[in-house]
Amino acid sequence: MTMTLVHDLKASAARLDRALADYLAETPLSGPGPAPERLVAAMRHGSLNGGKRLRPYLVETSAALFGISPHQATRTGLALEMVHCYSLIHDDLPAMDDDDLRRGQPTVHRAFDEATAILAGDALLTHAFAVLGDPATHPDPSIRIRLVAELAAGSGAGGMAGGQMLDILGESSPLTETEILSMQAMKTGALIRAAVRMGAMLGGASDRDLAALTAYAEAAGRAFQLADDILDVTASAEAMGKATGKDADQGKQTLVGILGLDAARLRLDAMVAEAIAALTPLGPNADRLRAIARYFAARET
Amino acid sequence: MTMTLVHDLKASAARLDRALADYLAETPLSGPGPAPERLVAAMRHGSLNGGKRLRPYLVETSAALFGISPHQATRTGLALEMVHCYSLIHDDLPAMDDDDLRRGQPTVHRAFDEATAILAGDALLTHAFAVLGDPATHPDPSIRIRLVAELAAGSGAGGMAGGQMLDILGESSPLTETEILSMQAMKTGALIRAAVRMGAMLGGASDRDLAALTAYAEAAGRAFQLADDILDVTASAEAMGKATGKDADQGKQTLVGILGLDAARLRLDAMVAEAIAALTPLGPNADRLRAIARYFAARET
Repeated sequence: MTMTLVHDLKASAARLDRALADYLAETPLSGPGPAPERLVAAMRHGSLNGGKRLRPYLVETSAALFGISPHQATRTGLALEMVHCYSLIHDDLPAMDDDDLRRGQPTVHRAFDEATAILAGDALLTHAFAVLGDPATHPDPSIRIRLVAELAAGSGAGGMAGGQMLDILGESSPLTETEILSMQAMKTGALIRAAVRMGAMLGGASDRDLAALTAYAEAAGRAFQLADDILDVTASAEAMGKATGKDADQGKQTLVGILGLDAARLRLDAMVAEAIAALTPLGPNADRLRAIARYFAARET
Repeated sequence: MTMTLVHDLKASAARLDRALADYLAETPLSGPGPAPERLVAAMRHGSLNGGKRLRPYLVETSAALFGISPHQATRTGLALEMVHCYSLIHDDLPAMDDDDLRRGQPTVHRAFDEATAILAGDALLTHAFAVLGDPATHPDPSIRIRLVAELAAGSGAGGMAGGQMLDILGESSPLTETEILSMQAMKTGALIRAAVRMGAMLGGASDRDLAALTAYAEAAGRAFQLADDILDVTASAEAMGKATGKDADQGKQTLVGILGLDAARLRLDAMVAEAIAALTPLGPNADRLRAIARYFAARET
């Protein structure tokens, strides 16, 4: 199963990379004027960098439950991935996490400069909504506008951007376990949740199925983040392509810090079990989503 | 006429301020979690600051041509203004224009810190699309998604964000008159263009009317920017509530620098005339838009 999943994820990532490269090669990028070359180069640098494209894969896998082909789901995944990439570009800035490396390459503000990195992030965020606005994403405007609302809610002040704010605030005041979970549910969880839900929305999922998928996504998102925090402690910088051990260095608080490594691993298993259990109403059709939850916990980079 | 316009603009700005304050008072701001107080405070600081709200007024005035009441157009103006405010917050950052004051108040990164200012801008941009996604903006999903596409095109790499990139690049290499006009058409013009067009879209304007309004908006946008560049040379910092004379100090290139003040004023009159002429197909109904173009050129702050 896992080998099949890894193969599938790679095929999905290749589709996404092509869609992203095609989108960023359009001249002009949709707008009244032609997009400046340097800005587009920075957008490409910050997004076409070998990302695993987990969120678009979640969109495809969730949409497949409702008869939507991967190709029909690619543009929705593209919009989500553009939001994810913008968030990494801004999080890496000197005023935020001040990272020099991302996936083994210089971060955008190191390869270009801070102003260009800020604008490249802004533009990727903006164009995510341009992608959803385009009929090529889905012919039905009422579905496209639902995707817009979902993506905006997942990435705004009550979602990803708010989570990053809480993460920064947490560096200077200790957080409880509940506060850490709530911060992570926004910072990382909200976009994973949006990915699964947007896939389901593409396929016109019923309210019951959407509720089951939302519960799955929330538990899987927690597992994904906890696995990330464990990797930050246990993996080498070489394997990760970015600095590790940074959470502790930056005073970032994680469940691993509170629970210790062994208890954190047990908790991770429980989260995966919770994600899998949430899928019960969807039956065996949802096996690929179950495999993804297990993969989140087992990944080594 | 001008007195009526000023009165009308104030009433429109008051409506916008209320809508913005209401939106930013919602707890939680739409999203999976509650928005952190500090982030919302920074969003408020950067948006509820006595802005003239010209873009929402353009939305209302354009929409009124097609029987849409100001109240029905307020949320669309809100989305546009949130994008405008995000752009000011990011443009003021140390890595960009490095401004300490905006409308007489400390800029967001001075009142809070850089990370918070970056996130507040990101969140305002994101929530602009959340506003358009909401059925309260317009009951018809096909109109809302058109507004999304228009706003994204106007503010992305081929619009406002691209224009800011060109503006920064222009500081280190001299621009021709044509390049300055093209940069300004993106940096300032694209959002003014989007405002007028989004108002027309709210009212289901015909292609012919939309084309006339687009030509108007492009000329009016040029006039607005040229008036701003003239004010940067002639007005006092006290009247403007921000530093003036900064264009020359920062090596920013403007038409005033190339043409000189007298020729720039003549050019401004010609732009206003062009904007007014573009409205001919719309007849006397468009008199308020004509007055706005004249007001752009005559404003003193």
